[in-house]
Amino acid sequence: MRQSQLFTKTRKEAPKDEVSKNAQLLIRAGYVYKEMAGVYVYLPLGLRVLNKVIAIIRDEMNGIGGQEIVLSALQQKETWEPTNQWSDKEVDVWFKTELKNGTELGLAVTHEAALTKMMKDFISSYRHLPSYAYQFQTKFRNETRAKSGIMRCREFIMKDLYSFSKDQAEHDMFYEKAKQAYVRIFKRIGLGDQTYVTFASGGMFSKFSHEFQTVTDAGEDVIYVSEKKGIAINKEVLTPELLIELGIDKEDLIEKKAVEVGNIFNLATRFSSALDLTYVNESGEKVPVVMGSYGIGPGRVMGAVVECLSDEKGIVWPESIAPFQVHLISLGKEGSVATKKAEELYKTFTDTGVEVLFDDRDVRPGEKFADSDLIGIPMRLVISDKTCAEGKVEVKYRKTGEVLFIEDSKILSVIKK
Amino acid sequence: MRQSQLFTKTRKEAPKDEVSKNAQLLIRAGYVYKEMAGVYVYLPLGLRVLNKVIAIIRDEMNGIGGQEIVLSALQQKETWEPTNQWSDKEVDVWFKTELKNGTELGLAVTHEAALTKMMKDFISSYRHLPSYAYQFQTKFRNETRAKSGIMRCREFIMKDLYSFSKDQAEHDMFYEKAKQAYVRIFKRIGLGDQTYVTFASGGMFSKFSHEFQTVTDAGEDVIYVSEKKGIAINKEVLTPELLIELGIDKEDLIEKKAVEVGNIFNLATRFSSALDLTYVNESGEKVPVVMGSYGIGPGRVMGAVVECLSDEKGIVWPESIAPFQVHLISLGKEGSVATKKAEELYKTFTDTGVEVLFDDRDVRPGEKFADSDLIGIPMRLVISDKTCAEGKVEVKYRKTGEVLFIEDSKILSVIKK
Repeated sequence: MRQSQLFTKTRKEAPKDEVSKNAQLLIRAGYVYKEMAGVYVYLPLGLRVLNKVIAIIRDEMNGIGGQEIVLSALQQKETWEPTNQWSDKEVDVWFKTELKNGTELGLAVTHEAALTKMMKDFISSYRHLPSYAYQFQTKFRNETRAKSGIMRCREFIMKDLYSFSKDQAEHDMFYEKAKQAYVRIFKRIGLGDQTYVTFASGGMFSKFSHEFQTVTDAGEDVIYVSEKKGIAINKEVLTPELLIELGIDKEDLIEKKAVEVGNIFNLATRFSSALDLTYVNESGEKVPVVMGSYGIGPGRVMGAVVECLSDEKGIVWPESIAPFQVHLISLGKEGSVATKKAEELYKTFTDTGVEVLFDDRDVRPGEKFADSDLIGIPMRLVISDKTCAEGKVEVKYRKTGEVLFIEDSKILSVIKK
Repeated sequence: MRQSQLFTKTRKEAPKDEVSKNAQLLIRAGYVYKEMAGVYVYLPLGLRVLNKVIAIIRDEMNGIGGQEIVLSALQQKETWEPTNQWSDKEVDVWFKTELKNGTELGLAVTHEAALTKMMKDFISSYRHLPSYAYQFQTKFRNETRAKSGIMRCREFIMKDLYSFSKDQAEHDMFYEKAKQAYVRIFKRIGLGDQTYVTFASGGMFSKFSHEFQTVTDAGEDVIYVSEKKGIAINKEVLTPELLIELGIDKEDLIEKKAVEVGNIFNLATRFSSALDLTYVNESGEKVPVVMGSYGIGPGRVMGAVVECLSDEKGIVWPESIAPFQVHLISLGKEGSVATKKAEELYKTFTDTGVEVLFDDRDVRPGEKFADSDLIGIPMRLVISDKTCAEGKVEVKYRKTGEVLFIEDSKILSVIKK
């Protein structure tokens, strides 16, 4: 894409009311626009990153047998009452609204109950189990405090997968598979080193749930990390018994601030019992389905990447989710050799499937470099009359700052390696 | 995908309260689930179709220079007041809600005002124009009547593109380009023959807008079609003057019921003037931006396809938006030659990128055929011991009913042609 055509522009300052680093950088670089506290618009660059995060998650969810659907935001009282989740006292982040005829509706904060109800149409026999459905869908949560940029929003896309199993053993096997898929997701997205499988409260039906916590000062949670074991423990479940069970010395734990980027839950039969989702097992008995839920917020993950990997100059995207692979910067004046070469390279890249942002704007080199650092594309190619004369291209890696001068004939192979 | 794994099942009857043909068929075949009147869940098959419709629209929007973004559903009063659209009396399909602190919010029914406000951050000079932004985003409309299945929903995805131009001449050029893109979209989706560019009321600022109306008895609109000219006129603008202007004889017009599947509007400076979106032109004058809006509901289009192209046996998808290209049906018993061959073909198809639904279920042939007709995949391949013995595969086209027996070695080339 030509940068001269991109309708967004970078800006020197973020809005004054924006206190989070992730949103400050993302707004300044033109990835998102702040509609109101906790509500952001995804601009062309931001949507490209978000879609790459989504594609990685989708790939892993399909890999463990997930089938993609989209449930509705509008929800009826009847769906949520059996599990005691309709009352604002029980679920304190509802946005409620109503139909013209006065029927109360709510905007879904999650979808366990809605999907359980729906699955009654499709599950009645052991032959229909196990089954896994997931979605990328917009959730609404009426947060009192929304100061963490795109990491805690009032409106946001969430990937939520729900598992339906015959019994606890079948559930446990899938739960472990989902946990491993989550580990792969955070690794692929570039947060593997900072993200810990974290023991957290399991709610009513199991000892623990598992959170995926990414260590960052911008996090709202406190976790205790055992670097030796590569796991962490949420404060709420940090007991001597658990430490013994996990074989961890208390002295090895380090307190860190972190953001919860994913969580997986054993729901047991809480929803299936309340909403009567049963099946007939191989012995002819009618029994409730055993369920699990598995959530990741792609926007929150994107925000966590910015919190963790940016530097004083701007964002540093991992290759896997960068909006473009290459930032091609022409320093040539109109009609110059450099301009001609940059145009040729742009054509070569687009023709061969290299995702490239081409800074063809008529602005000073310093502005181009500053914008490039702020936007954070992994590889920057600079085309100047000087490098042209040498038959080379200057390559600079955003993450390391490493600079190479590559012969023209080798550029494509360097990019594609 | 293996049909034995697909969690949805076909059903003989649609819900009793579902009166529309499109939703009846889509529910029975397992494409959508009815959450409440006007609110549908997209199931795995349904989401595949919806995503194909979206991909075609996206391709055409990118082709005319559109840049994709995603705006927010949650909207503030301040955004909508300047254009007098906040009052429930002016816009009668609002869902309103509020923040914990009592701040009133609305769920966006459209996005002209929100985007105009945002563009003030990015447009200030003639050098920033023209600019085109679009999105696929969930709209909420509090419809009193929601009886047309997925063609009129209270919650639905809409593609809305907005154009920002320097002046009326620049706007008009793009408007015509967008109109042609819409013609291509409906042709690619398989509704080209039934869909008419239709003259409709232009609102305050221009003589006409253009609707894209698809002729179907399920439509809620009445249009007057000139088959000779290949265009139509909405009742509200059917005047002797227009007929003269268009060179149409009144006797040539045929009254038809139709559904509006798209519309394009000249907004002139209604929103830019009200919300102060101005730019400095080449003469140094500050002038308002000239805008247009261009909408298509992918779900409505999908519903219109079902209304127009289904038959007494079920849905008939055009190839371009079918959930799968091939429905592979094995009639073999466990361990039979037919079963082995079907499994081999399934592997060949998935390995070579053929989108295939493989009916590997242990049910009667009659049930498989009935389900296949209901689901409506364009090409059905039947593998039986009999066809195996002949070294052939039975191919049946859903649309025409044509049956061919193809030699094994030629199957891939028949599918891919």
